[in-house]
Amino acid sequence: MQAKNINAHLTEISTYFKMAISVDCVIFGFDNDELKVLLIKSDLNEFTGKWSLLGDIVRPEEELNEAAYRVLKARTGLDHVYMEQVQTFGGVHRHPAGRVITVAYYSLVNIEQNELKKHGNELHWHTVKDVTDMAFDHREILQSCHERLKHKVIEQPVGFNLLPKKFSLRELQNLYEAILDVKLDRRNFRKKFLSMDLLVDLHEEEDDVPHRPARLYKFNFEKYDQRKKRYLGIGF
Amino acid sequence: MQAKNINAHLTEISTYFKMAISVDCVIFGFDNDELKVLLIKSDLNEFTGKWSLLGDIVRPEEELNEAAYRVLKARTGLDHVYMEQVQTFGGVHRHPAGRVITVAYYSLVNIEQNELKKHGNELHWHTVKDVTDMAFDHREILQSCHERLKHKVIEQPVGFNLLPKKFSLRELQNLYEAILDVKLDRRNFRKKFLSMDLLVDLHEEEDDVPHRPARLYKFNFEKYDQRKKRYLGIGF
Repeated sequence: MQAKNINAHLTEISTYFKMAISVDCVIFGFDNDELKVLLIKSDLNEFTGKWSLLGDIVRPEEELNEAAYRVLKARTGLDHVYMEQVQTFGGVHRHPAGRVITVAYYSLVNIEQNELKKHGNELHWHTVKDVTDMAFDHREILQSCHERLKHKVIEQPVGFNLLPKKFSLRELQNLYEAILDVKLDRRNFRKKFLSMDLLVDLHEEEDDVPHRPARLYKFNFEKYDQRKKRYLGIGF
Repeated sequence: MQAKNINAHLTEISTYFKMAISVDCVIFGFDNDELKVLLIKSDLNEFTGKWSLLGDIVRPEEELNEAAYRVLKARTGLDHVYMEQVQTFGGVHRHPAGRVITVAYYSLVNIEQNELKKHGNELHWHTVKDVTDMAFDHREILQSCHERLKHKVIEQPVGFNLLPKKFSLRELQNLYEAILDVKLDRRNFRKKFLSMDLLVDLHEEEDDVPHRPARLYKFNFEKYDQRKKRYLGIGF
């Protein structure tokens, strides 16, 4: 094959420069012992009354991550949150306006700290397991991001992004149960977590709770970062 | 916000339909105890003499996965291989012809079985750790896919896609060492693998090897599939 110059190449592929790229953000939160996702009422006639993820078209001179952070900032006012690119969805007919390929991200937000910028009533925190019908292929995107989150929380301490800085072991277990959608044995869960030696006992107790106040902990991120991840955790 | 009809929306976003999407495949193989990647000489003047991943522009009516399988089939003749979407790269100036966003996949190929379709000398299996300079942002893409593979092989038995059906424990260890780029303790490695009880002793030995012939095994995929993955493997 001969080397081609860029003009020949440009002509060859110019017919393909007709697509648009969007980002869609699955913004997870945790409230009332349930995993939540922030959704917006779709403003397209096709999808009237349906909820969709928060997203936008990527601008010509914008990086993908920039676009995702822009969407998040515009909708929630938040800047520094955990965010991860998950998967790109490119179904040929997924968008009624033309070929729009979307890059899906999820982010983890502490709902308590979050000064949610509401525009009317269009934004709403939904309980993830109750979400059924959605606009576009957004339900598939939500499921894909939820799967990634399930996977991630059992191997990295990302779940703490969803909790207040001080939390009880009960809250921590509720978080894991909500994300993984399973019931966990209380004694095993506590034993497992305490044995990792990454929780700091704050010698404080919960305030204003309708049950016996529980001990509060924080996660020791410094210690976690210092520990070298060893290889050969091979196991399947 | 008022509901918009699709025409208004189309006009609004029509200026954004000027991008192209490509797929890039990081095709991994294992040979001579080394992790390999299949690369092609770039045919763009800008990148003369540099190696690039195998990829192509996604066609207007083509799904992303379809495009990735098309590239793989065209270059290697292979149809049914392990393939996984990893990450999408959208750097504004990553492609000299315009805004081309690329979706990166990796696939795992058994080099022995692979009837590599060579077009001249343009295709070549490179040792991953020796690859330095590449065309476009392909080195970054290669690294990202290699990281994903490292992660994947310790939690799922995908590495067997790179081995012959019958293999020795030495070959298996060499594979893990090549992928993870670490030296593993022989005794621990064997103990760990045999304790998972997923290797089947074939009561055969290697042929034609320059060392003492080793016992051959195969991986028990049926047993693996039957085992329910339990949750609460939480550990970090």
